[in-house]
Formats: sequence, C-alpha cells, structure tokens
Amino acid sequence: MKKIKTIEFKNDILYLIDQRRLPTSYEIFKCRDYREVDYAINDMVVRGAPAIGATAAYGVVLAAKEFLKEDRKDFFKKMDKALDELNVSRPTAVNLMWAIGRMRNIIEENKELTIEEIYQKIREEADLIYKEDLETNKAMAKHGNQIIKEGATILTHCNTGALATVGYGTALGVVREAHYTGKKIFVYADETRPRLQGSRLTAWELVQEKIPSKLIADNVAATLIRDGKIDVILVGADRIASNGDTANKIGTFMLSVIAKEYNVPFYIVAPTTTIDFGMKSGKEIEIEERNSTEVTHIEGIVIAPEGIEVYNPAFDVTPWENITGIITEKGIIKAPYKENIMKWR
Amino acid sequence: MKKIKTIEFKNDILYLIDQRRLPTSYEIFKCRDYREVDYAINDMVVRGAPAIGATAAYGVVLAAKEFLKEDRKDFFKKMDKALDELNVSRPTAVNLMWAIGRMRNIIEENKELTIEEIYQKIREEADLIYKEDLETNKAMAKHGNQIIKEGATILTHCNTGALATVGYGTALGVVREAHYTGKKIFVYADETRPRLQGSRLTAWELVQEKIPSKLIADNVAATLIRDGKIDVILVGADRIASNGDTANKIGTFMLSVIAKEYNVPFYIVAPTTTIDFGMKSGKEIEIEERNSTEVTHIEGIVIAPEGIEVYNPAFDVTPWENITGIITEKGIIKAPYKENIMKWR
Repeated sequence: MKKIKTIEFKNDILYLIDQRRLPTSYEIFKCRDYREVDYAINDMVVRGAPAIGATAAYGVVLAAKEFLKEDRKDFFKKMDKALDELNVSRPTAVNLMWAIGRMRNIIEENKELTIEEIYQKIREEADLIYKEDLETNKAMAKHGNQIIKEGATILTHCNTGALATVGYGTALGVVREAHYTGKKIFVYADETRPRLQGSRLTAWELVQEKIPSKLIADNVAATLIRDGKIDVILVGADRIASNGDTANKIGTFMLSVIAKEYNVPFYIVAPTTTIDFGMKSGKEIEIEERNSTEVTHIEGIVIAPEGIEVYNPAFDVTPWENITGIITEKGIIKAPYKENIMKWR
Repeated sequence: MKKIKTIEFKNDILYLIDQRRLPTSYEIFKCRDYREVDYAINDMVVRGAPAIGATAAYGVVLAAKEFLKEDRKDFFKKMDKALDELNVSRPTAVNLMWAIGRMRNIIEENKELTIEEIYQKIREEADLIYKEDLETNKAMAKHGNQIIKEGATILTHCNTGALATVGYGTALGVVREAHYTGKKIFVYADETRPRLQGSRLTAWELVQEKIPSKLIADNVAATLIRDGKIDVILVGADRIASNGDTANKIGTFMLSVIAKEYNVPFYIVAPTTTIDFGMKSGKEIEIEERNSTEVTHIEGIVIAPEGIEVYNPAFDVTPWENITGIITEKGIIKAPYKENIMKWR
C-alpha cells in the first residue's frame, strides 16, 4: 500500500498535496500562516470533510505561532478572528466547524496558562485530531468491510480516499480494506462533475493502489445500477443531520434514488464527527454554491458559451429513507436513524 | 430568431458547422466526397440523429457525383460500397439507416435510367429529406408546445436543437416554439458529459436565441426535480423501439427514473423516422461505446490519471414505462405505446 501524505505538519509549515494539480502533476502546497490555510481550504487545494477538519486545526496552530509575541489581550483577540475566518472557509463540511470548535475549547480551557503553554496545547490538540482521524478511518474501514461480499462491484462518487482525510479514507477506506483483505473487488468511480474529484483524485488513488476499476461519466451510473452490475454503493458525507439526512457531493442524491428503485444497498461512510447533532434534518443544511467557472471552464479551457448563466451547487442532501446504513468508526448505524444516531452522541 | 445552418449543400460541397469547435470557435467543415462525410459523422463534426440522417443523404449525393463517369456496373458496385460505409458511420441513430435506406431505394427504383438521371434523382431525394426534416421539426414544435404551460421551467439533456437537425430542433424545437409564442419559459440545460453537448451546443443555441436559461452539471438535475423546480423534461431520441423504449444520450435513463419518482412529466421529442418498427424492445438496441479519451481528456487537457480504465457508453435506453409521451410531427403518442406506435407506421 502506498502512503499518501495528504496533510503533513513539520517545522511550523503545513504541507498539503495540491489536489488542484492532480492527477497530471504532484505538487506540495506550503502554508506558512493561517491565511494560506484559509485560502487552501477555500480554493480546494485540500478538500474532503475530514481533511478540511485536520487542515483547519493546523491553521489554528499557525495562527497561535504567529501571535506568540503579542500581549495576552491581543493574542486572544487575534486568535478569535483567525478562528472565525477559518470557520467559514467553506460552509457545508461540519468537520470544519467541529475541528475549529475543538481548538476554541482548548484555548478557552487553558486561558489561565502562558501564551507559550497555550500554543503547546493547541499544537497537541491538532496532532490529536490528525492521529484520531487516521485511527477513525481504519476503524470505519473494518466495520465497512463486513458488508462487502467476496467479488463485489462497488460504485463510488467523488473522492473519499486518503486525499479526503488524513489518510486511508472513508468510503474509499472501506474499498482499500476490502481490496487488501483479498476480496477481489471491482470499483466503478464516478468522475464527479464539476470538480472531477472522481477522475482526478479517486482514479489516481485506485491506479496507485492497483485496485481493479473503471472510471465513468456521472451519467453512466444509473444504467449500471439498473443492469445489476453494482452490488453496493459507498459514498462519504460532509454533514449528517440527527435524523440521518446526509449532505454530500452533488450527484449523491441522484444515485440514492436510483439505488432505492433498483434495491442496491446505499451506504454513507463517515466518522461520527460528521454528524451535526444540533441539526434536526437535512433541510437546515446550508448548501455551498460555487463559482460558475467550475462548470464553464476546465483548466482554462472554455467549454460553454460566453453569456450563459450557471447554477453550481457543490452538495446535495440525501434523505435518510434512501440510506441503507451509515458506517462510522463506532459501528454501522441503521434506521430508525433519529433514535440510533443519538446513541452515539 | 437566428438562422443556424447546421447543414448546407452548395456547388457539390456539403458545408457543416463543425460542432467539435463550438462554442469557442465557429468553423465550417467542408465535405468534398463521401469519405469526408463518413469521417464527419463518425468524429461528430455533425451529430444528433436527424442531422446525421440528412448529412448521410448528401454523402450519397457526393458518392454518386464521384462515380458519375464510371460504367454502369462499376457505378452500382461503388455506390453499394459507399452506402454500406455511410450506413455504419455510427451505430445507434436509426435515422442514419433510415436515410441510407431511402437513398438505396431511389437507386433501386431508378436503375433503368441513365447514371446522370439517377444522380439527379439522388440529389432530389437528399433535398427532400432535408426539406422534410425542417417541416417535421416545425410540426413537432407545434404539437409539443401544447403541453408547455405559461411560465414553465423546462429541463433538457444533450443537444436537440437546430444543431442536431437540419434546423429548429426536436426537444429544443419545442423550447424555441414555446419561447417565440411568448410563454416566458425558463430552461435548465444539462451539460451532458462526456461530450458536453449541453454546454457546448445547447447553451450556445440558448444564448444565441436569448432564451432565459441556466447550465448545470448533470449531477444537479435530480435535486431540481425533487425540489419541484422542473415542470417538464424534454429530451430527444436516437432510436425508439416499437414498444416505446427509447435510446438517447447517456444520462437520459437516469433523468427518467428521477422524473417518475417525483411525478414530473418526461417527454421524448423525435420524428417518426426515429422509430424502428422492426425492433420489438429496447433490449435489441445496440449501444455505441466510444473512446475512453472522451472521459479522460478535454481538448487535450488530461483530467484522469494514466492507466485508469474507462467505460464510456454513448447512449442508454429509457423504458417506455418512464415516458409520459412521445412528441412526433404527427402528434403525441401516449401509452399503450405498442398499439399506438403501430398506428403511425
């Protein structure tokens, strides 16, 4: 298994694989302060809900380092501003708010310490988030692998792999686990327009790991599902409401409807940090609308006429009724979600 | 209304709008012999079932012109070969086989005439196919417009406009008619991966005609349908079996399932020449699989890693159960399709 270092913090620099450049070029994007981290999340140098969470945590470390020489009052004021900025670098992934919340608590809980000591606490917390994400992914993969049959064909959407997390992956982590436990699986990867995370990132990971697979346009999945060629669908999540409604990459909802119609199991794979316990249903989830150029251009190449308007939501919400189960690091949650999700709180 | 000359035959040259170059560049592709016509159809310089039919007919004219000086035996032999080649330039659109069949009949019916006279007959028949397509589209548009409500929001897939036909369009012809009869419609156009006919061609036509509209990634349509934002879905067809099963651009089937689930009317708009009366059901329709580079590259730009395999079917089959009606130049066909389609034979 190849080691993909999506996020690495060394000598006060945050190193990110620049996911905007894959698969043609492997480049490292260096963040030397929290503003660069903010930019990296917003511009999708790094993406994937768990990866965004860990990245933001190191953004807080960089902010603390920068303000180390400030007097106490200014330190807390400036940290507060940095936390607020990072918190809104993208709107849908709850792991971002969760990680920022954890960092904020650490500052709050230790506010009697010296600034240098607070910085150390912040640093330790970020490392802990990083370490926990990796362990969480391994645990999810093991739980998820239980529902994967020998020789199964798996359909996946967007990128939920090592690149979407600190390592291993959520939905693609289950795929990795099934592959390395010798189940002889086959994967169909949706290319996932408009940002093409499926072709750029998932396909790249699949090739790296030599997992038998084919790339398809998003329009193809429905016929494969109907024709009985898909045994199970595994996708990630950016936010899960307490009733099980799940926000994930645009196109997920469509797959869930087709899966339900043709009785193909449809699983969400996500750490419990993706659950927003304060949110009653998916109706409350804010859906990020991104720039129209994601649809009209591909790497500077114009693919739509000048003057055309675009509607470009980055996510959609899949209702709990369409979800067979939610695979987490603590086990698989099944309906009734409202009751069963609360058990993990 | 802007006049889009998709196909024009003048001075023994067939002029085609090079649809591979739109929307960034407007170029004319000239066919001086039938081999160039064969290439133009195969490489999708021209596409759209009705446009392919008319183009192939002029390919036969160019072949006849080329073989005018041959002796009778060689003329018929070479024409036969040219007809066979054009007939397989693409496999799914039945209008191609229909147009070639019509040209073959003309040669057969007039084989007692001189070669020069046969050439004249061929030329007249191609002109007739061209003229009929335009009239057919206008008639379809009028029938289709009856089901479009004032202020309707219409979803469409692929390109079914003037560029897919000799002029006006099939599904987009209905859109044009609704717009020009003042119904204040709004259009969502699927970009239609992998060839992006929606963004490259449909969006181009919509901008040209100033029809209020937005372009979306194919992944977005399902949420618009669920959220009640689409009043009707209009798509074209490449082949309709005698039971109503319809082959159309990949992604059509997916839309039909979502439309059925959320009770949104789903109409096919196609001339009766698209009906393959000899085909019992969609199961018999051959689905063209195209080159993997359509998915892995966009205008030479690499968007997928080297070594990834691709599954790239160009069409899918929508079962008759998912189709609200088939809008033809003779009227709207409704279920039971098996009986009602045969009435138009």
